Amino acid sequence: MHRIDLNCDMGESFGAYSMGTDEAIMDYVSSINVACGFHAGDPSVMRKTIALAAKRNIVIGAHPGYPDLQGFGRRKMDLSPEEIYDSVIYQVGALQAFVHAVGKKLHHVKPHGALYNVAAKDKSVAKALAQAVYDVDKDLVFVGLSGSLMIEEANGIGLLTASEVFADRTYQDDGTLTPRTSPRALMASDEDATSQVLQMIKQGTVTSVNGKTVNVKADTVCIHGDGKHALSFVKSIVKMLEQHHVTIKHF
Amino acid sequence: MHRIDLNCDMGESFGAYSMGTDEAIMDYVSSINVACGFHAGDPSVMRKTIALAAKRNIVIGAHPGYPDLQGFGRRKMDLSPEEIYDSVIYQVGALQAFVHAVGKKLHHVKPHGALYNVAAKDKSVAKALAQAVYDVDKDLVFVGLSGSLMIEEANGIGLLTASEVFADRTYQDDGTLTPRTSPRALMASDEDATSQVLQMIKQGTVTSVNGKTVNVKADTVCIHGDGKHALSFVKSIVKMLEQHHVTIKHF
Amino acid sequence: MHRIDLNCDMGESFGAYSMGTDEAIMDYVSSINVACGFHAGDPSVMRKTIALAAKRNIVIGAHPGYPDLQGFGRRKMDLSPEEIYDSVIYQVGALQAFVHAVGKKLHHVKPHGALYNVAAKDKSVAKALAQAVYDVDKDLVFVGLSGSLMIEEANGIGLLTASEVFADRTYQDDGTLTPRTSPRALMASDEDATSQVLQMIKQGTVTSVNGKTVNVKADTVCIHGDGKHALSFVKSIVKMLEQHHVTIKHF
Amino acid sequence: MHRIDLNCDMGESFGAYSMGTDEAIMDYVSSINVACGFHAGDPSVMRKTIALAAKRNIVIGAHPGYPDLQGFGRRKMDLSPEEIYDSVIYQVGALQAFVHAVGKKLHHVKPHGALYNVAAKDKSVAKALAQAVYDVDKDLVFVGLSGSLMIEEANGIGLLTASEVFADRTYQDDGTLTPRTSPRALMASDEDATSQVLQMIKQGTVTSVNGKTVNVKADTVCIHGDGKHALSFVKSIVKMLEQHHVTIKHF
Repeated sequence: MHRIDLNCDMGESFGAYSMGTDEAIMDYVSSINVACGFHAGDPSVMRKTIALAAKRNIVIGAHPGYPDLQGFGRRKMDLSPEEIYDSVIYQVGALQAFVHAVGKKLHHVKPHGALYNVAAKDKSVAKALAQAVYDVDKDLVFVGLSGSLMIEEANGIGLLTASEVFADRTYQDDGTLTPRTSPRALMASDEDATSQVLQMIKQGTVTSVNGKTVNVKADTVCIHGDGKHALSFVKSIVKMLEQHHVTIKHF
Repeated sequence: MHRIDLNCDMGESFGAYSMGTDEAIMDYVSSINVACGFHAGDPSVMRKTIALAAKRNIVIGAHPGYPDLQGFGRRKMDLSPEEIYDSVIYQVGALQAFVHAVGKKLHHVKPHGALYNVAAKDKSVAKALAQAVYDVDKDLVFVGLSGSLMIEEANGIGLLTASEVFADRTYQDDGTLTPRTSPRALMASDEDATSQVLQMIKQGTVTSVNGKTVNVKADTVCIHGDGKHALSFVKSIVKMLEQHHVTIKHF
Repeated sequence: MHRIDLNCDMGESFGAYSMGTDEAIMDYVSSINVACGFHAGDPSVMRKTIALAAKRNIVIGAHPGYPDLQGFGRRKMDLSPEEIYDSVIYQVGALQAFVHAVGKKLHHVKPHGALYNVAAKDKSVAKALAQAVYDVDKDLVFVGLSGSLMIEEANGIGLLTASEVFADRTYQDDGTLTPRTSPRALMASDEDATSQVLQMIKQGTVTSVNGKTVNVKADTVCIHGDGKHALSFVKSIVKMLEQHHVTIKHF
Repeated sequence: MHRIDLNCDMGESFGAYSMGTDEAIMDYVSSINVACGFHAGDPSVMRKTIALAAKRNIVIGAHPGYPDLQGFGRRKMDLSPEEIYDSVIYQVGALQAFVHAVGKKLHHVKPHGALYNVAAKDKSVAKALAQAVYDVDKDLVFVGLSGSLMIEEANGIGLLTASEVFADRTYQDDGTLTPRTSPRALMASDEDATSQVLQMIKQGTVTSVNGKTVNVKADTVCIHGDGKHALSFVKSIVKMLEQHHVTIKHF
């Protein structure tokens, strides 16, 4: 029997601005990562997102990012490791309070956007992130890019980790994601994406853009919640996993 | 034997901007209220302020305000009770995480500036604030203006409360503060201010601007930490209280 | 021959967040009001909105609001008249630079949201707004609620003004808008809305919610650009006006 | 006869936060660069700073920076050249409106902090900056690091430029500043700093940290306005320049 977690970033609306179809997608994923007000989300959006999740059998994580609402946390900022530590304690603490207020427990933390990308390669940033998560609650699971420095640093500090893979992104020979700047960055079709997911779960491998078979650890698959066909894509992934007897369950 | 708490708002620096003389004043007060990043403070300032406090025998509270850094939380904003509830959960949660990270426990919450003033008179705002504090942690003490709706609503919901009085502000016949717009809003001298504090503690009364003796409950006295002679004022208050055998201890 | 201006608030997207269908609606209105980054919009959205407008025969105005992105400028803030003056100079100046950069001239200024509502009734706010517009460029047209203090103050200072009416809102016996809190605030149907517009243009009157005929000056009609059927509504208004030989042209 | 401009960054206070001693230093410099609200400053600070400058015989420039108040614009952010163009148009336009409101003319633009440092070395950023300044007003002078890409790009586009040198910073053999991370980044004493300035003005050279004589173009010298002895330092520079018959006058 195989088992996998499907995760989706949520709570990315802000004030009068709406983003994503959170409630619809919550019925299909097993874990969510909720924006904490720095790159997206606001206190009211956070409360409402947690309320929706609390009614379902899914686990709730924090999704901290750079303090850059205009850039949606996608623009790298030169924050010192100490500033990253501080801003992650702040964001995770804020979200945790909403989760506690409905009688639930915060389950994990996954960095967002440019912070995620930087932490995958920069040891001092990865370390600062992991330490912040540990200092908020050492039982939190750290979710990071499979095979990256983030996972290594978080494990090194004694945190449980979940290795994240992507359904709609292609991989390179060394197991890293093909950069978005490449024309080959995205999977060609939904069918290819679902096949890639199945291979990652069942064989623990991924076929690189050059056709090489590469080992990859897949604890959780990231599903994107924005975009017009996000919902139909998550439905097709879930259907395919059920057909192949893969249980969808949080890590 | 009489006993009183001295409290001071702290952690009001922001980025490259410095405000107050937190560390010096911490040696004289028994409780502090730390800004949470909405009207003042930032994640790094919060961590540093908590670190300074953790080395001393003082209790740490959260000091949430309106989301208005430019106005320092002193400009009233028409937030709905729900928006106030959400923004207080967020701010208190963020600060709580820093307190927990150093192994301490958050002790109380005191609203800041215009939010404090509005909550003293607006039942729905007072209720939203009290509920937010309760939902973060029902053991938190709610600090509010002595004799105000805030205290009433917080008690009504089952929270412990601490009634706050002011050393440097004058009172009206009905026990409320003389508005800052009045030329008589501030005590004329440090001597008058310290005398007023002593009367509030020992007799449980205050002499209004019209000479009337009014009952007032004094659990904690607010000491202002900014301004040039903040430090000398707090020293003189402490000295006077010791001379009159009043113990300074947190509520 | 009758003539009217149709105006629409635009440039309200922010970063990754999209709002409104600006480009489509630009083909039907004669003037636009562009958000200036305080309650909505950002520098890139401002540039793109101006670029779209510059290709069309429509005039461009600035749409300054309270510094409250989370509240979309709809929450009243207690800014002093001086703070309002300063924030309007800032916002209008920023937008004006984008308009100049494409070789056009800024045409008018219309306050947004809660600032608009406050200025309609508060003389000192209305005066501060008018003075700011005058000090940026005394040839700018001030657009405000028909019959309000805004129009009076702007005229008093020597500015040209345009009196704004609303298609989809009902009016009270004294010529003011029925507050949004009333169940009768909105017109019942698109047909009623277009009839009301025609009556305001041709007769210079509006029928109040109590059936009274009230005089109203209509230089420009506000068309809302968000909401699902904004585009179909503006099309139907335009068609009706053409059928009744009303020329749509900027003030 | 030699001549030089002394410039100082000003208007860096924000809301309740005060920074610098602007008014005192204005009496000694010939040009100022005013923060535009993104990394420091706010609309009210901008107006007050302009009002102070307008009473003196100094020229006023805009000082745009990254949108990062918490980091004071000192943290590099990965903005695209287009985003930089937009944010500079916005900031310069906002400041220009305040300058026009008092009947003066904006004279120059100098980028701030990390944006200045990035633009000195990144051609696409330098180009975006120069184009933005040109598109606001092609008669504006572009102030940038002497010998850098900024000056080159601004000249290339047809802007007048002013080459900036630093009194208190040391130079390397290639004419660039010694990075702040080096222990030798700052001049050892005020005497050394003033001597360096004199050499740059009179000989058009600077002596590098390795003792090499390097050519440097000096149109304007940057004086720092914060820090305790900023005022005494500017006074000593001015006195020395007068003694050596160097006229202090804006470029």
